[in-house]
Formats: sequence, structure tokens, C-alpha cells
Amino acid sequence: MKTVKIGLLGLGNVGLGTYKIFEMNREHIEKVTGVHPVISKVLVNDVTKDRGIKIPEGVLTSRPEDILEDPEICIVAEALGGIEPAAGYMKKALENGKHVVTANKAALAANFKPLRDLAEAKGLMLRYEASVGGAIPVMAAVRSQLQANDFSEVMGIVNGTTNYILTKMTEEGAEYADALKKAQELGFAEADPTADVEGIDAANKLCILMGTLFDKYVEPDTIPRTGITGVTKKDIDEAKKRGESIKLIAGCKKDAKGDLTFSVEPKCLPVSHPLAGVSNEFNAIYITGNAAGEMMFYGRGAGSLPTGSAVAGDIVDILGLLFG
Amino acid sequence: MKTVKIGLLGLGNVGLGTYKIFEMNREHIEKVTGVHPVISKVLVNDVTKDRGIKIPEGVLTSRPEDILEDPEICIVAEALGGIEPAAGYMKKALENGKHVVTANKAALAANFKPLRDLAEAKGLMLRYEASVGGAIPVMAAVRSQLQANDFSEVMGIVNGTTNYILTKMTEEGAEYADALKKAQELGFAEADPTADVEGIDAANKLCILMGTLFDKYVEPDTIPRTGITGVTKKDIDEAKKRGESIKLIAGCKKDAKGDLTFSVEPKCLPVSHPLAGVSNEFNAIYITGNAAGEMMFYGRGAGSLPTGSAVAGDIVDILGLLFG
Repeated sequence: MKTVKIGLLGLGNVGLGTYKIFEMNREHIEKVTGVHPVISKVLVNDVTKDRGIKIPEGVLTSRPEDILEDPEICIVAEALGGIEPAAGYMKKALENGKHVVTANKAALAANFKPLRDLAEAKGLMLRYEASVGGAIPVMAAVRSQLQANDFSEVMGIVNGTTNYILTKMTEEGAEYADALKKAQELGFAEADPTADVEGIDAANKLCILMGTLFDKYVEPDTIPRTGITGVTKKDIDEAKKRGESIKLIAGCKKDAKGDLTFSVEPKCLPVSHPLAGVSNEFNAIYITGNAAGEMMFYGRGAGSLPTGSAVAGDIVDILGLLFG
Repeated sequence: MKTVKIGLLGLGNVGLGTYKIFEMNREHIEKVTGVHPVISKVLVNDVTKDRGIKIPEGVLTSRPEDILEDPEICIVAEALGGIEPAAGYMKKALENGKHVVTANKAALAANFKPLRDLAEAKGLMLRYEASVGGAIPVMAAVRSQLQANDFSEVMGIVNGTTNYILTKMTEEGAEYADALKKAQELGFAEADPTADVEGIDAANKLCILMGTLFDKYVEPDTIPRTGITGVTKKDIDEAKKRGESIKLIAGCKKDAKGDLTFSVEPKCLPVSHPLAGVSNEFNAIYITGNAAGEMMFYGRGAGSLPTGSAVAGDIVDILGLLFG
């Protein structure tokens, strides 16, 4: 069985999940790909830090060139987070002929077009399932099965933190500040929740969804955006009385002329809408195609193993296409 | 641009939807595949019947060999319904070196293993997205993005007729017989509803799901099966009082030893379960993977364009893999 070397950038939450999935599902992955994939190098800041798993000697490195310039590494998986140096590393990997998988919505949204153009020019695959909706295989569906569709709309609940907060406000009658505090205690919100509650994270994901579904790239900063900090218990109660539920929606709609309108903002959805039932930290993406009609993809939008599943899935899919 | 010939077996509901999608999304499909796909032959019983669309002279044929033995046809899409002659035609197409796409759950479930083995032996693709959940791209997700997962459970609402009837009983307090009558009036149930209401159709789909997710083939006739004819208004009311909703679930669960338990039967789900919110004729498949966690795929399980979307999606995906 042929050994294929993979380089992993980052061993935080997502990187560790990816590494673990290759350990725990190795037999299964070898069966479906027909090759023996090895994560041969992992970029970390501190090679001496204990991460609670056994990693063979020599795998951890603090030198990015050990991965980006290793001619034997055929796929680079990026799980660093943040725009730079992540985007620069992805560019370098593509320039050096490596397929790239990323979980990093910020780096991808800021560089969607140049990275996609570079991958295309080099005849390489750039995969980013984990960057939107974590484990939810929406990109795979759009890339393969839904290709015969022309899309007219996408509506996403793509930020687990804000969905958790809105769920607690709705189900427990909590005020925004109390729900945020609870989310922070449970690890669903960061100490500085700005990127989540102001819709910045959702705008990055909408940028990636629009680029993929409508082949239209807009800078994430230019997406009209309203977060959830202004949503009150009163708003939620009034929506409830009307039979509606408030959700932070990253949405884009195409009109008959092909023009797109898009925004990230809290929206009132009828409780019968499939997105209205998406609770707590779960994510979902609701898409309308001119052939398939309305579809929804639901699952875990964050977490080490779920997000690692999407990264590993992209790697396994590339291996299948290269060696299957 | 290279012309690629496709043969279509059947021009009923699904076949017509498939044909129309290639007409209405031609430009888009050519852009994503890089080839010019032509449905060059369509098998019908009566070549003179008016189907409300313009089909070029010479495309319709009543002779299956015009498709199955045409060396220029590279993909055969089967949308005949029923076990035979559909399964025999698929076998013949594979033997003659053609990739096969099918929407036909009955023919596929009855012949899942031999057809898959034959496709594998010949190095050909056998795709069947439309056979389970209509437009819902669950097979694409399992085949590509979720390959790194080991699955522990699948629960499907895979029959729109029974889901419509149960929804009407739940939302409007209708008795089974009245809800069935309404479903028949609206075209959601057939004059003889046996295959739907007795769970036979759902068992065929469970057979295909199990073969795909667990690589385990069971004859559809051997799947323990209870339909919805015994579900009463009283059952539904009592479930409601417990905060539950009754759904016909095609389910399979794998235990720690790898043994599978499976059935088609009405089940009480907590209303907070994502499947509980799947209403009317919609379908959804809820899957648990050891890495991705819980996921749900929701959409239209029937209808000419939705089911045609899945057939067209399979064809487009094969074209991309062959010529992309």
C-alpha cells in the first residue's frame, strides 16, 4: 500500500481533531482510499508542549518550510486560524504544487479569489469544507451532487455562539447579557465575543458561501452586517407572539436579473421554517436550487472532532481522486 | 467543446424532470463540466405520445438496444421504476461499459450487491442519489466528505406520503383514513397506497442506505417492517401530551461490537429532535458519525424536478470526474 505524506499546519482544537481522526479511523480510511496516509509533519509553536496524545518523534516542527518545501508532502492541511501567516502558507503550498485543505474562514474569506485562482492555475485542489458549518458537508454537496442546479438563495445559521445565545433567550427568557455569560462559561463564546456577536465570523462564512454557490466574490468587510447585541428579550417575546423565531442569518438572494442582495442580520423566521428549529450551538445551511428546490444541511458547526471530520473528509476525498 | 452522449431510460415524472434540467441549466452544466452533454436517446413505450416538451427528431426510441448497445453513449440514466426490466437494463449497460445512474429504489434495493459488484469489477460508476430522499444530496456527502467517518446510526424519514399523512394527523387532528384520502387527492399518495403506508418503499431505501453507510447488504424483504396503518389519532394525541411526535423511521444502529439492528416502524421522537420538525411531504436523513457527530440532510424526497436534480447531479458529477 502506497504511503502518502500529509502536512498539518497547527495542532490546536481543529488540528488535534484532524490528527485524532486519522488515528481512530485509520483502517476505514485506508479501505476507502486504497493508500496509507501519514501525517508526516505538524507545524506547532512549541514542539515540547504536552498535547495529551502520542505523536512519533520528529513529526512536530516549528519550521513551516519543513512542510511547505518538503517535496514528499502532497497535501497541506491548514488549521492555524487567523489571516496571516495562514494565508501566506496556503499560497506557498499551492505554489509548491501541494493540494490545500483549510478550516480557516478568516484567511479564506480574505483571500478567496486569489487562492482559488492560484489553485486553478496550478491544477490543484483547494478544499474548505470545515470553514463553513464545521462538520456539515454542504460544500461537498454543492461541489458534486448539486452542480446541475442554479441557486437562487442561501440562508445560513453559521455561527454557533450567537445561535446558542438566541436559543437561551428564546427558551429560557434570558436577557442577552446573561445568555452571553452562560455561553462563555460553557466555552461556546470567547472572552472577547466581538467577532461572533457582531456577525464578523458569519460574514466571513457568507463570503465563502457566495463565492462557492454564486461564483461571486465580495470582500467580507463590505457585507452589510448587524450582530445580535441589539436583540432584546422584548424583541424575542414579540416574535414568539407572532409565531416567529429570531435567528442570525447569513443570507444571499439572487433576483431574476441575477443581481445579488446579501447581509448578515437577525431575522424573524416563522417557527415552521426548518431553520427556526436549529437550536443551541448547532449550525444549518438552507439552500434553494432551481431544480432541487429547498434543502437544509444541519450539524455541528464547531468542536475538535466535528471540524476535524471536515478537514479529514477533504483530505480523504483528495486522496480518493488522486489515487482511487 | 466535446460532445458526450447520454442515454435516458424512461420519460415519466423523473425522466422528464431530468431532461428538463439539462435544457434549463445547459449553460451552467457546460461551464462546470467543460463538455457538451447531449441526451441523445430516450427509451419510451410510445414514441408518438405528446409530453408537453419539444424533443428533437430521432431521440425517442422504444428499443432499449438503441441505448444499451450504442457505443457512443457513455452514461445510462435509468428512470423507469419497477424492478424489471430496469435492473436487467442496468446490468446490460454496465456489461457494455457504460456508467449507470439510477433513481429506482426498488430495482436497486433488489439488486444492490450484484449491481455494485459488477460496476466495481468493470471499473465503472454506479450512482443512485435520487433513489433515497429524492433531491437530498446525502449519498454525495457520504461518498465524499464523510468518508473519514465511521457511522453508528442512520434514521430516515424517507417516504413523503406517510410523512404527509402523519403530519396531517398531528397538525389537524385528522384520522388516518381522512389524511390518506387528502394525500391521494393532492397526488402525494397513490390509489393503491400499500407500498408507502406499509413501509415497503421505506424498506427499499433503508436497504440502500445500509449498503452505502455500513457496507452491509440485507434483502429489503427481510427488514422488520411496520407501516402507519395502525397509527391512530389517539396514539398521536398521547405522544403530543408527552412532548413527542410520531414519525415513520427507517433506521439502523450499529452497536459497539459492530452488529446492526434495523427496522422500518413508527417511532415517537421528542419534538426537539431535528427529525420531529420535518413536515408534510419533505424527507430528511439523520446520520451520526464518530467524527462529525449528528447531521441532518433535509429536502424534497419526490417530484419531477427535485428527483431529476439528483439524477442530473449524478450525471454531471460523473462527467466532471471523466472529463474535468
